[in-house]
Formats: sequence, C-alpha cells, structure tokens
Amino acid sequence: MKRPLNEPLCPRFHRAVELIGRRWTGAVLQILMSGPQRFGDLRAAVPEISDRMLSERLKELEEEGIVHRDVSTDTPVRVHYGLTEKGLALEEPLHAIEGWAHEWIPPA
Amino acid sequence: MKRPLNEPLCPRFHRAVELIGRRWTGAVLQILMSGPQRFGDLRAAVPEISDRMLSERLKELEEEGIVHRDVSTDTPVRVHYGLTEKGLALEEPLHAIEGWAHEWIPPA
Repeated sequence: MKRPLNEPLCPRFHRAVELIGRRWTGAVLQILMSGPQRFGDLRAAVPEISDRMLSERLKELEEEGIVHRDVSTDTPVRVHYGLTEKGLALEEPLHAIEGWAHEWIPPA
Repeated sequence: MKRPLNEPLCPRFHRAVELIGRRWTGAVLQILMSGPQRFGDLRAAVPEISDRMLSERLKELEEEGIVHRDVSTDTPVRVHYGLTEKGLALEEPLHAIEGWAHEWIPPA
C-alpha cells in the first residue's frame, strides 16, 4: 500500500489537506462519522466552538459536497447534518490521522 | 482496518489534523516525503509560499519533532530539512488524503 509521494506538489492533495485541516473541520467531521447530528448536538460535542464558527464550517462542508443538510417534514422541523458519500470517504484519511496521533502525540 | 470513529472528540486527533492542515504544511510535508531538501529547493517546489512563511512552517514542524534540520560540516555550510521518524510516519495519513483527493476533488 505504501509508495512514495511522487509528484512534487499535487494541487488536489493540497486543497484536500487544507480543507480537512481548517479550524474545527476535522473535529466536526470526526463527530459526523458516527452518524447525522443536529446542530445543538454538534455544539455540545465541540464545546469550544462558537455557533457562528460551527455554522460557517458546516456551510463550507455543504458547499464542498461533504456534508448534506436534511430538513424533516415534521413539525417542529428538525434539521440534521450528515456526511455525503464524499464525506464518508474521508473515513480512511481521518482514521489514518487518528492512528498517527495516537502513536506520536502524547496525551495532554 | 475500517472501524467507526468512536470517541466523540479526540484531542490528539484534533491537534494532528489541524497541524498537518495548517497553511502550506501539507504541501511541505508532501515534498519532504521524497527526501531531505534544501530551503531553496522547497521554495522552488512551492512557488506561492513566501520565505517567511516557509521558515515559519519549518520551524513549527521542527518544534513538533516532525522535521529535523541538518547542518553539514562542509564549507560552504549546507542546511537540509528532512523528516524524522515521526514525520515519516505521516506517509500513510498523507497518502490516504491524496487518495481521497484524487477520487473526489476534480482536477483544476
């Protein structure tokens, strides 16, 4: 599976790594891996994030086609944020980062 | 190999993903995967980065124990930046990100 990273600078890799590394984005994606969440649940799972920042990150991820926003037809309306196929495909990279972190970053 | 990301928010994962996603860091790491490089070669490989930003990123990565700076005893002195064992261990995560990017991010 391992092979050297050949191309000196791949713009698609570059875009991807900075997208998932954006402030709080990795954390939000990690939580969404466990299933669709309501805004308030995401807020509770990432206590340090502000409402504004969370909205911004979710909107960005929606624009990237990584997150989809589901609005129920119930009353009261319920909104859930979940991962698209593109978002679910991030499981492997996020998992590899988690594995590296657990091996190399000391517990706080 | 695949399993769900269980813990709601892992601080070590969080730190790792934002570390490698920092502006230009992923690009610099990707280039260093092919072997130690001189400052000027890194600059040439990432033309959009400024000297100041590159110095900053390399210093951060050195402080994190991901990059080491080798100073030769020759005259003139030659400085190379290479990956430590911790840095080389990022190959798998970076590779997984690259794989995702090539599948899901359209070529520019």
